[in-house]
Amino acid sequence: MRTSLLTAVLLCVTAILSAQTIQLPQPVRTGGMPLMEALNQRQTTRAFDNDKEISKQTLSNLLWAAWGFNRENKRTAPSSMNRQEIDLYAVTKTGIYLYDATSNILKPVVLGDFRAETGMQPFVATAPLNIVLVCNKSKLKSKSETGTIEATYANSGYISQNIYLFCASEGLATVVRASIAKEKLAKTMNLTDDQLITLAQTVGYPKK
Amino acid sequence: MRTSLLTAVLLCVTAILSAQTIQLPQPVRTGGMPLMEALNQRQTTRAFDNDKEISKQTLSNLLWAAWGFNRENKRTAPSSMNRQEIDLYAVTKTGIYLYDATSNILKPVVLGDFRAETGMQPFVATAPLNIVLVCNKSKLKSKSETGTIEATYANSGYISQNIYLFCASEGLATVVRASIAKEKLAKTMNLTDDQLITLAQTVGYPKK
Repeated sequence: MRTSLLTAVLLCVTAILSAQTIQLPQPVRTGGMPLMEALNQRQTTRAFDNDKEISKQTLSNLLWAAWGFNRENKRTAPSSMNRQEIDLYAVTKTGIYLYDATSNILKPVVLGDFRAETGMQPFVATAPLNIVLVCNKSKLKSKSETGTIEATYANSGYISQNIYLFCASEGLATVVRASIAKEKLAKTMNLTDDQLITLAQTVGYPKK
Repeated sequence: MRTSLLTAVLLCVTAILSAQTIQLPQPVRTGGMPLMEALNQRQTTRAFDNDKEISKQTLSNLLWAAWGFNRENKRTAPSSMNRQEIDLYAVTKTGIYLYDATSNILKPVVLGDFRAETGMQPFVATAPLNIVLVCNKSKLKSKSETGTIEATYANSGYISQNIYLFCASEGLATVVRASIAKEKLAKTMNLTDDQLITLAQTVGYPKK
């Protein structure tokens, strides 16, 4: 009886979550600021316009720029031995979503506003988007513990720089953050022991 | 007598090295491929045209894109707490040079062809340029050992992605490498115990 109730609840939660899947529009893989100008504009900004949302098209372009596929099974950022061990999670006021670059969808992991859990600074709770980078350590099994840390932090840096440059190009504000209450956030995100949060990056329009 | 001879030799070596300082032309901080197209073209290439040199202007632009100043005391890539703990060394057939982004010069560290020491794969010995990323750990003293590794590898990834995107934009070939005989190379480069080689990246024109 108890088991069947639990099963029913789980089915219900799964149904609610899958109903909340966000199909992103196709990313636009052309245009943007000339590279040298984007590099010249790259900067960290910690003051966000909390009322100005990021459109689905911009979000799609941003996530593709960060870690989308630009060739068959190859991405906009490199990874050691092309193991692609990193997943991006988009944390918004409506939930935490896993970016599935193959289907170009955001799969809800938890519904609700958990932005405050993505960092220590007050702005993370109110800025429209925090992107959390998560390493799937099981994909790096051949490496030593230190080798895993070296590789996945370097690989996280590649992705994070793509976000910085996209933001510079699009007039968005962004800041990467390494101080995160990782254990607590991992629980909220239902991560496994094999998953390691590396960095989180806040994105929004700059405060006027 | 022996001391004064040694002093004379050292002075002589210093004089020879400083005579070999390379003043780079001002980097061009505009232009390049539109960002989304550079991201779309970003890729790893391991076959280089060994005869086609990289011009000083392209080298200046490349190093500025990688880790130049785009504002007063701020660079094209972020670093934890703006500690800017990374140094770039350009390894060419004529020597190993430290990139001084402030003066826009390459300061020779050792003269001679040490390209083969920057990696394990045969192409590193013959491609025109290998850039070695070196962390100055003394700038990250407040961090734990793990915190230092996490931070400096992430920071290395940012710089390396800038190199990847510059190469995509300019039709250059590049590959980043983590497998390096670091102890041996550190000796050749006269690094101190506080300096840690993180990554090396080969750059050249693609083999036709």
